[in-house]
Amino acid sequence: MTTQEILCAANGAKTAMALADTNQKNAALLAMAEALLRQETEILEANNRDLEAARDSVNAVMLDRLALSPARIQGMAQGIREVAALPDPVGQVLRRVERPNGLVIERRAVPMGVIAIIYESRPNVTSDAAALALKSGSACILRCGKEAWRSSHAIVEALRLGLREAGLPETAVCLIEDTTHASAGELMTAVGQVDLLIPRGGAGLIRACLQNAKVPVIQTGTGICHVYVDAAADQEMALDIIENAKTSRPSVCNAEEVCLVARPIASEFLPKLHRRLVTERAAQDLQPVELRLDGEAARIIPGVPAGEADFDTEFLNYILAVGVVENVEEAMAHIAAHSTGHSDAIVTADEEAAARFTAGVDSAAVYVNASTRFTDGGEFGLGCEMGISTQKLHARGPMGLQELCSYKYVILGSGQTR
Amino acid sequence: MTTQEILCAANGAKTAMALADTNQKNAALLAMAEALLRQETEILEANNRDLEAARDSVNAVMLDRLALSPARIQGMAQGIREVAALPDPVGQVLRRVERPNGLVIERRAVPMGVIAIIYESRPNVTSDAAALALKSGSACILRCGKEAWRSSHAIVEALRLGLREAGLPETAVCLIEDTTHASAGELMTAVGQVDLLIPRGGAGLIRACLQNAKVPVIQTGTGICHVYVDAAADQEMALDIIENAKTSRPSVCNAEEVCLVARPIASEFLPKLHRRLVTERAAQDLQPVELRLDGEAARIIPGVPAGEADFDTEFLNYILAVGVVENVEEAMAHIAAHSTGHSDAIVTADEEAAARFTAGVDSAAVYVNASTRFTDGGEFGLGCEMGISTQKLHARGPMGLQELCSYKYVILGSGQTR
Repeated sequence: MTTQEILCAANGAKTAMALADTNQKNAALLAMAEALLRQETEILEANNRDLEAARDSVNAVMLDRLALSPARIQGMAQGIREVAALPDPVGQVLRRVERPNGLVIERRAVPMGVIAIIYESRPNVTSDAAALALKSGSACILRCGKEAWRSSHAIVEALRLGLREAGLPETAVCLIEDTTHASAGELMTAVGQVDLLIPRGGAGLIRACLQNAKVPVIQTGTGICHVYVDAAADQEMALDIIENAKTSRPSVCNAEEVCLVARPIASEFLPKLHRRLVTERAAQDLQPVELRLDGEAARIIPGVPAGEADFDTEFLNYILAVGVVENVEEAMAHIAAHSTGHSDAIVTADEEAAARFTAGVDSAAVYVNASTRFTDGGEFGLGCEMGISTQKLHARGPMGLQELCSYKYVILGSGQTR
Repeated sequence: MTTQEILCAANGAKTAMALADTNQKNAALLAMAEALLRQETEILEANNRDLEAARDSVNAVMLDRLALSPARIQGMAQGIREVAALPDPVGQVLRRVERPNGLVIERRAVPMGVIAIIYESRPNVTSDAAALALKSGSACILRCGKEAWRSSHAIVEALRLGLREAGLPETAVCLIEDTTHASAGELMTAVGQVDLLIPRGGAGLIRACLQNAKVPVIQTGTGICHVYVDAAADQEMALDIIENAKTSRPSVCNAEEVCLVARPIASEFLPKLHRRLVTERAAQDLQPVELRLDGEAARIIPGVPAGEADFDTEFLNYILAVGVVENVEEAMAHIAAHSTGHSDAIVTADEEAAARFTAGVDSAAVYVNASTRFTDGGEFGLGCEMGISTQKLHARGPMGLQELCSYKYVILGSGQTR
């Protein structure tokens, strides 16, 4: 099918999905999970063909992201079941007023309609995104990277088996067949046919969406996250938080990329930081962190002199830019100039400094005395997430089922005129 | 100042506005209202120059929109005072969870940042929009049509007097000096400098924003609103609602443009509709409504045969397209194909038909037994509005102070790591 045909097909499923009740949607989700397990052989075969085709052109990390196994398929099925268990956001009355003229005005959560997701090579995104879209009452159009197409296709075939069993239209989950740039462009400009476009991928994809999209978009992902160690910090706590934020999973968007240290404690704290992230990790056979130091930090501890771009780079690796600032005000100014608005933290025992930081830092998640790694739908109690929005319109931070919905006003009258 | 300089100036005011407390913002709003009244002479003089310059090029309706008077300036000042009296949306805790690991996660309403508004010739939008932006903690950039520039400039000068008196930066309210298309284009593409762009104007402006904007936009306004008269309608109620929705103020976006009548009652109801909207109005010296009839309606009552575009036109005038449909399902299908998603109504005593209609019609406001004219911030109890969103992302329907805000997560910990 052409991309245009797929857009029509998904829009054809929109009303049925919007009107499906919670039981029907949950039955479909459980049937989809069952079908994934039943189709394991077909999915693994398709994945093997993807892996063979990709072996020469992509690196080991990419291959690992692409690879499926029976355990990973079970994980995908379990993910779908967990979405089924979450409360249904659709139809929730978000606000209700009765006006003096007797009109009852309700603001009700409604499905977005057709959600398009452009992603890369992780086949599990296929089932995660489909499950979240369906539970939020929307049809979805999935557009994966070409390395993962065969796997995604086999997964979508299984998901559609489940939809059919539950009596919902199989075109509620569509996979784009054209994996060239052209199809991404068609989705970005499908005004009236795509109600929400979510790009999940690298900075290049996000930039292309920002430049070209005519449909509503939610930007996700890029995270240049800061941890500021205030003069009043519990320094042991700061070390724990920084090591966790930097090293527990360096490849993700909520990992720390920049550490700012208050000048009054810099000469005391920076040697501890070096010991914790470099010396001790090496001694424990853990990957040490490469420190990229501004001029002032470089006069205190050894490390690589920071280049111009180092405070504006999402390293996604065992690299940390380290700078010295005078106080919380200077830290906030640095963050305003360099943060991507994802997650930024202060470590301090000074409540006033904490309050200034949380009020003044304009990011999706602002932490006091905790690791930036918690920015995640599950950790925030949303149960799941479609991605982490770094924009301010509509949804910010982890997007759960509620954030995938819109709302409408329903006004019940008895003949009122104005 | 160039548009680029104004963008910088407004961004310079953003943090001070975000950190301003409720008292300070209210003091500024009250001082702005005072200053408007104090500067009445200057504002009226500027308005006179606008009116003289426009006299030959615009029609009487436009001239009336442009004209100010002492009473209209008092109305603007009163509008600002009403905004001051509304609750402050900033800092409200929208959700709060305490997680098993002890993290307290709050979702707090925060200002959008810099809101740009592109509008046309009504000078009162200048003070309304500025008041709403300021109360929601944002700086604003106003870009009015060239006919209204002198008036808007005089109004902004007065508003800035008020800001200075309250100790807030005057660049929190900026008026674009360049009234050519170039400046609108600069605002649409000012990524990182405009957090939200709201076009308030005709279909051409909205289309230009949709095509060209790279910054987040909320579409407002266009309303092709339907009233569907069900077979089970109270027909007198339907006539009252239709006359009100069509004729109480035909030039506004929540006025009815299309009436759909259920086939089983068409031959009974349509003659009553003709009598109410045409014969009786003429007899009462009221402007009669021109009926544009589909083939079936034309066989029952006299009127103009509807052309192809008549069911897709925002007449904003005493014109009503009238069609016959079989039932609520056909009405919903017609609305799905022709509505702009603004406001649509059903008149019925059948609760099941009402429930199907409210669930199935995908518009910002869906009415049962009431006039579409109620879609308005004041009527919905929001106290005010910046416009009526017809999009599904972020805000839908009337946008009050809360809808002009974003949110962020503030996470309070005691050293938690993941």
